[in-house]
Amino acid sequence: MSAGRTDSSASSRGTGRRVAVLGAGSWGTTFAQLVADADPGARVVVWGRDATVTDEITREHANSRYLRGLRLPGGVSGTTDLVAALEGADDVVLAVPVQRLRGVLATAAPHLGGGAGGASGPTVVSLLKGLELETHLRVSQLVAEVLGDLPYAVVSGPNLAREIAERRPCATVVASVHEHVADRVAALCATDYFRPFTARDVVGVEVAGAAKNLLAVGVGLAEGLGLGDNAKASVIALGLAEVTRLVVALGGSAATVAGLAGAGDAFATCASTLSRNHRLGVGLSQGRPLQEVLDGLGGTAEAVGTARSITALAEGAGVSMGVVGQVAAVLVEGRDPRDAALHLLSQPLRDERLPWR
Amino acid sequence: MSAGRTDSSASSRGTGRRVAVLGAGSWGTTFAQLVADADPGARVVVWGRDATVTDEITREHANSRYLRGLRLPGGVSGTTDLVAALEGADDVVLAVPVQRLRGVLATAAPHLGGGAGGASGPTVVSLLKGLELETHLRVSQLVAEVLGDLPYAVVSGPNLAREIAERRPCATVVASVHEHVADRVAALCATDYFRPFTARDVVGVEVAGAAKNLLAVGVGLAEGLGLGDNAKASVIALGLAEVTRLVVALGGSAATVAGLAGAGDAFATCASTLSRNHRLGVGLSQGRPLQEVLDGLGGTAEAVGTARSITALAEGAGVSMGVVGQVAAVLVEGRDPRDAALHLLSQPLRDERLPWR
Repeated sequence: MSAGRTDSSASSRGTGRRVAVLGAGSWGTTFAQLVADADPGARVVVWGRDATVTDEITREHANSRYLRGLRLPGGVSGTTDLVAALEGADDVVLAVPVQRLRGVLATAAPHLGGGAGGASGPTVVSLLKGLELETHLRVSQLVAEVLGDLPYAVVSGPNLAREIAERRPCATVVASVHEHVADRVAALCATDYFRPFTARDVVGVEVAGAAKNLLAVGVGLAEGLGLGDNAKASVIALGLAEVTRLVVALGGSAATVAGLAGAGDAFATCASTLSRNHRLGVGLSQGRPLQEVLDGLGGTAEAVGTARSITALAEGAGVSMGVVGQVAAVLVEGRDPRDAALHLLSQPLRDERLPWR
Repeated sequence: MSAGRTDSSASSRGTGRRVAVLGAGSWGTTFAQLVADADPGARVVVWGRDATVTDEITREHANSRYLRGLRLPGGVSGTTDLVAALEGADDVVLAVPVQRLRGVLATAAPHLGGGAGGASGPTVVSLLKGLELETHLRVSQLVAEVLGDLPYAVVSGPNLAREIAERRPCATVVASVHEHVADRVAALCATDYFRPFTARDVVGVEVAGAAKNLLAVGVGLAEGLGLGDNAKASVIALGLAEVTRLVVALGGSAATVAGLAGAGDAFATCASTLSRNHRLGVGLSQGRPLQEVLDGLGGTAEAVGTARSITALAEGAGVSMGVVGQVAAVLVEGRDPRDAALHLLSQPLRDERLPWR
C-alpha cells in the first residue's frame, strides 16, 4: 500500500495539494470550499460517515443537509472511506465533533504519510472548538497524544460557516507554535473573502474557542429570559474577562482573547441567533429539559461536552469563573436559568478583574 | 451665596445626597433615574439648555424627546439654571456632548463647592465617550485642566440608555484612580438592575469608550454594505486589538479593553441598530453625504468629533490603527466606504497583533 500511496500522491501533487477534510458538517464542507477556492488545482476530499452526504458532495457539489444552497468547486469530492480520504494527504483538516475526535484519529493514525511522530507527516489543521470530556485535553494535546508530533495549527475566529459558504468576507486566526506552519495553513485557506491572520498562541485560541460555546449558551439564556442587549453584552464581556484569566493561567496570551479568536468569535456567534449553542440557551431559558432541546437542534452543541471540562480546567488553574460556571451549572446540574442569571447580577461591587465568588 | 449654599446643602443632606446631572439627553436622564432609584432620598437635578425638556422632567417626570415612555422617580427635577443645579451638589455628573464640555465646565467652575482644586469639592462623574477635538484631551484630563484636582470617576460599559430606563439588567465599570472614589460612585448608581464593577484604569476606560464610537460606525458601514455578521465581528475584533495597543501605549491596561468598558460596550452598541454611530455608518455606506446623515440622526454622534483626535493620539503614540484609521478616513476625508472596507480585507497575512499598514 505504501508504494501505491506514494504513486498516487506524486501524481496528484502534479495538480496541487491533496487535502483531507475529516467531517462533512457545515464548517468542514465550507473549509473544503475555501481550500479549493484558494488553490483550484488542489484535490480536496471530504470524509463523512453518511454516504448520502458524501455522495452528494461528489456528484452534486452540494451538501443540502448542512448547507442548503452551497455550491462547491469541482476539486472537492466526498467519501465514507477514511483510508481513501487520507491517502497522500498533505494536510488533514479536523472537523468532526470533539468528543468523537479520539476515535477518528486512532483509526486514521496508521494511514497518515510518514506515520505518527514522523516529521514528514501531513500538517494537521483543527477547526474544532471544545475539550475532550474525560481528559479535559485541548485538541492540540489530544492530537499530539494520538498522532505524535505532527505540524499542527488551529483555525478560529468569527467564522459562521453559512456566510463563508456564500463567500461573504471575514477574518480569522491561524495559530501554530511554528510560524512556518501557521504561514502554510494561512495560505491553504486564504481567499479574497477569507482573511487569515497568523499567531503563535495555540493555548489561547483553543481555550477561547472552547469557552466561547459556553458564552454563546449564556447569551442565549439572557435572550430567552428577555434581558436585553445590555445584559447579553455584559454576559459576553464578563465571560471574556474570565476566559482571559483562564488563558493567562494556562500560559496563553490575554491579547488572543481580545482578538478575532476570542471577542470576534463570541460576537459573531452571539450575533447569529442561528448558532446551536445560542439556540440551546434560548431553549433552556424556556424551562425545557436539556435532552429535549438538544434533540431539536440537529448537529452538535459542543457546549454540553465542554462545560465539565472547562470547569475542571478552571478549578485546576485556580481561576474562578462566574459566567462560565453558571452556564455549566445550567447545562450539567440542571440549575434553573433564572436563578443562574440572578446569581450573576447579585455579586459584590468589586474590581472587574477580581474573580467572582 | 456661600452661606446660603451651605444651608441649603445641609438641609438637603438630611434627606440624602444632592446630585447634579449636566445634560438632559437620554443617558443623563437615565442616570438621574439610577441615582434616584439607588437612593430614594437623593435630590437629583438634571440641567439642560431646553426648558421644554427640563420642565417636562420636573412636572411630568418624563423626557419624551429623548426617552419616550420613561417614568422618572419623584426625587428628580429639571432646570435650565446651571448655578441652581450645582448648588450644594455632592456629585456632578457630566452628560453633555464632549465638544461642549469645556464651555459648560468653565461656567460651572465658580459654583462647585470647595472651588476648583479644593479637595472638599464635589465628586465629578463622567458618562462621556469621546476626546476634545482641538486638544485630543480625554475627559478626565479636560476636567482636571478646567476644574483642578477634584475626585473623578468615569462610568462606561454596555449601557444602552433605553434598556436601563426600562430597568432591564446590565453591568458597568466605574473607574477612578482612587479606589474610594470608585466605590462611592458605584454606590451612587448601583441598583438591582444596574451592576457597577469598580476599576482603577481611567485611561483604558476613557480611550476604549472614545474608540468604541468609531468601531460602531465601522460596524454600521459593514452592515450597510451587506457584509454579514462575520465581517461585523471581524471589524469589532480587529478594532479592539488596535484599541488595546493604543490603550497600552498610553499607560492603560489590555484587560480593560477585553472587559465591560471595551468589548462589552462595543458589543451592546453594535448589537443595537438604534445607536447613532451605527446609523451614521449605515447612512454613509449608502453613499449619502456626512452632513445629510448627521442631520437625520438627532442627538450627537460623538464619532465625528472623536475621529481626528483618536487618529492624532494613535500617531503620537506610534500605534498604527487599520480599522479606526479607515473609519476616520470615511468620516474626516470623505473616503468611499467600499474602498475603506476593501482596504481592510487586503492586508498581508501577518500576525494578528502586528500593526496594520
